[in-house]
Amino acid sequence: MTAPSLPNTGRYPAGGAAFPHRDLLGLAGLAPHELLYLLDEAEPWVALNRQPHKRAEVLAGLTIINAFFENSTRTLLSFEIAGKRLGADVVNMHAATSSVKKGETLIDTALTLNAMRADAIVIRHASSGAVRLIADKVDCPVLNAGDGQHEHPTQGLLDALTIRSALRARGETGEPFAGLKVVICGDILHSRVARSNIHALTTLGAEVRVCAPPALMPAEIEQLKVTPFHDFDAALAGADVVMMLRLQLERMQGQFVPSPREYRHLYGLTLDRLARAAPGALVMHPGPMNRGIEIDSNVADHPAVSLITTQVEMGVAIRMACLDVLTRRARGVEGWA
Amino acid sequence: MTAPSLPNTGRYPAGGAAFPHRDLLGLAGLAPHELLYLLDEAEPWVALNRQPHKRAEVLAGLTIINAFFENSTRTLLSFEIAGKRLGADVVNMHAATSSVKKGETLIDTALTLNAMRADAIVIRHASSGAVRLIADKVDCPVLNAGDGQHEHPTQGLLDALTIRSALRARGETGEPFAGLKVVICGDILHSRVARSNIHALTTLGAEVRVCAPPALMPAEIEQLKVTPFHDFDAALAGADVVMMLRLQLERMQGQFVPSPREYRHLYGLTLDRLARAAPGALVMHPGPMNRGIEIDSNVADHPAVSLITTQVEMGVAIRMACLDVLTRRARGVEGWA
Amino acid sequence: MTAPSLPNTGRYPAGGAAFPHRDLLGLAGLAPHELLYLLDEAEPWVALNRQPHKRAEVLAGLTIINAFFENSTRTLLSFEIAGKRLGADVVNMHAATSSVKKGETLIDTALTLNAMRADAIVIRHASSGAVRLIADKVDCPVLNAGDGQHEHPTQGLLDALTIRSALRARGETGEPFAGLKVVICGDILHSRVARSNIHALTTLGAEVRVCAPPALMPAEIEQLKVTPFHDFDAALAGADVVMMLRLQLERMQGQFVPSPREYRHLYGLTLDRLARAAPGALVMHPGPMNRGIEIDSNVADHPAVSLITTQVEMGVAIRMACLDVLTRRARGVEGWA
Repeated sequence: MTAPSLPNTGRYPAGGAAFPHRDLLGLAGLAPHELLYLLDEAEPWVALNRQPHKRAEVLAGLTIINAFFENSTRTLLSFEIAGKRLGADVVNMHAATSSVKKGETLIDTALTLNAMRADAIVIRHASSGAVRLIADKVDCPVLNAGDGQHEHPTQGLLDALTIRSALRARGETGEPFAGLKVVICGDILHSRVARSNIHALTTLGAEVRVCAPPALMPAEIEQLKVTPFHDFDAALAGADVVMMLRLQLERMQGQFVPSPREYRHLYGLTLDRLARAAPGALVMHPGPMNRGIEIDSNVADHPAVSLITTQVEMGVAIRMACLDVLTRRARGVEGWA
Repeated sequence: MTAPSLPNTGRYPAGGAAFPHRDLLGLAGLAPHELLYLLDEAEPWVALNRQPHKRAEVLAGLTIINAFFENSTRTLLSFEIAGKRLGADVVNMHAATSSVKKGETLIDTALTLNAMRADAIVIRHASSGAVRLIADKVDCPVLNAGDGQHEHPTQGLLDALTIRSALRARGETGEPFAGLKVVICGDILHSRVARSNIHALTTLGAEVRVCAPPALMPAEIEQLKVTPFHDFDAALAGADVVMMLRLQLERMQGQFVPSPREYRHLYGLTLDRLARAAPGALVMHPGPMNRGIEIDSNVADHPAVSLITTQVEMGVAIRMACLDVLTRRARGVEGWA
Repeated sequence: MTAPSLPNTGRYPAGGAAFPHRDLLGLAGLAPHELLYLLDEAEPWVALNRQPHKRAEVLAGLTIINAFFENSTRTLLSFEIAGKRLGADVVNMHAATSSVKKGETLIDTALTLNAMRADAIVIRHASSGAVRLIADKVDCPVLNAGDGQHEHPTQGLLDALTIRSALRARGETGEPFAGLKVVICGDILHSRVARSNIHALTTLGAEVRVCAPPALMPAEIEQLKVTPFHDFDAALAGADVVMMLRLQLERMQGQFVPSPREYRHLYGLTLDRLARAAPGALVMHPGPMNRGIEIDSNVADHPAVSLITTQVEMGVAIRMACLDVLTRRARGVEGWA
């Protein structure tokens, strides 16, 4: 399989102008057509991944380094599988065994990966902005796999793709995001997932409501073109999509949240509470879930409403699309070089 | 190299009926012809692995996930090499860095791996039954790489293949397992290796004796069609094969075993003691060994009697056979789809 | 791309006689033409690695095991990338999760890797001599990726290649190492990097000076054909190359070094101090650096003098050359079988 050619419907600028950025550090500032271009590019990979033989040779001979300074099973697995299915040589650098422990600066690590002639570097780091710091020092595309409380752009993209796929599967044909009512509920303050989703969904025309306990709502939230709620029931009224966030264990006691039980009572998604949303409302969660805290099992496992495993599936396809698109310039793909 | 074609001697049902199971969770309940089929399927891989160029493309385009919730160097390496030599894309999920630590349920991990469109999942887990729990939730074949004190089926198969290869190498031509006297000695109570070997060997017609200190012998042992011994010397009399088990360090002090020294005195395999077995008796150990405790170095390293490194070699071939056979349905191999 | 064919200028014996060793355990004892042969073999890989498509199929079908008993990000990444770019199946064995923890002997680990039919084993170990111990027990080539305070041969080779490349890039055409004045400064006593560099550089005809605090200078240093210094300023006079060593954190307090600040004062490479070296002197460091201790950032990052990222780049190429050359016999390359 070669690089997928899409029917150019005139929605996108031609060639490299369709996505003129070297890196994918965040979704803030991307134009609607750039977001849609990445979603469209993921579609053939969704189809490929459903075949038994799911390997392209698009990135054959390229070296992708996954440099994860913060542990993550799902995201690392997803990027590793994405790179391998595209035919790349994929190597993982685990923070736990890295020179970082020896006091090496982040910039020296970046220079090292660059000197090894990586063709793309995927980075996860506990500090907001660390990924950009590295990107500034290297010659190849950098993909942010989550940096502190800043952004997790492939999560925002995969969530948008998941929503679009679900609505299309129902036979809805129009612009899927226009006027779509999406509630994001949980620890908005610390969540890079929330931030990337807010950027993507508002850019694509959705009406985004965010809901959090007062201590977990950012002060500057109104600047993000969303409507803040502290009352989950109110936020849910008429919602088309309910996106629950993981409550980090370390927030469960003390200053942010009185107790897991109290949290569930006020902000947990139960079947009863879901009934307040629009008929046919869809439920999402980036995982891993705290079942019985932010989401009940009979919601998470409900085949008619839950998109949670679809999110995982779309994640691999979106990462394939991003790796493909961002390496086109270096690969000399026509129109991109 | 394509999928190996074997001379069908009429011993096996045709096509997928030769091994009609989706998963390999254990050896209990498998028919003799099913076990023999897997052993036969491993033979061409043994031959391939002895070439410098040892790569087939049988599983090209398939994704194999090794999900090891319990550490293991040998078994993980063996499965990883097996998958790569078959041309698959192999990714390892290490428990130490996994979402499991974040409190994710095993079932959610299973759903995640499944949604990433794995074509086979290899699982090792400290709890008996955990592998079946995952298998019940996924769409692809699951291979048990050891679960608690339950089973370690590829170990049982590789041990049978090792015995058969050694007997054939001596020029013995008949049914190798019929009436073969095999002693399994050590911590029978906690050993999944013992359990899988007991199932395989008794099914194939061997006479299996198990020997353990009273505290390390399962209460229900007689139900397994084996003869229990507490006296190692008695168990060894006339044995054709002596299979020693690893004594876990945590059992060495206290309730199960008085002391390593005492254990060696009663249950350690020494050259002197081996003389009680049949002439030409063969010695096995699944590794890693406690040299000088359950087995002496001059036994373990004796080229004429020790099959210990052959076991490792057969392990890779058996895992290649299992991965090949179990993915045939999904790959649409003729007669299996 | 096939195995690179080099213009045989008559400098090397033909075929396998050009490098007649099975293993690469150290640089001590290698002949000048053997060292130069490996450097020359690396050149086409340097060129390949600068292409977008940087994959050869020279080692296709071979299994390389990286067995790292001591953590290392850079060296492991470098060997892993090298093996993959050559088309090999590469598997990593991490000490942290290895059977070694279960008390397995090093020799049993070696026998296990051998029985899995590895075609090359790359080993890093905290004990000097451990790599040779393993090499003695296996049938395939073994590459030492650093053993205790003994040797780190690929580091010595990559440093020589880096120096040669830099001098040639300046238009110098003669024998690059003849009479070249190289200072190696830092913890000479504990450094395998220093030892491999001393062997390579003195063999190739360079004049090597070593500089260390008295407590970090080996007693037998004079036997290595180098000139020892305790005064860094004196050592630097007229030097063409200054190679700084990493000061291990554990040496920074107490018995070896009074304090990091004192160390920098006496042995840190500053721009001022570098002025004592020959005009155009080049600076190297094996990484990871302690910036502001053994080397100042305005030296390390100075594009006209620092070769530090070039060292990383040459590292991948040298490892490709070593893996290629050492596996030729097994691959039946003409003239090597």
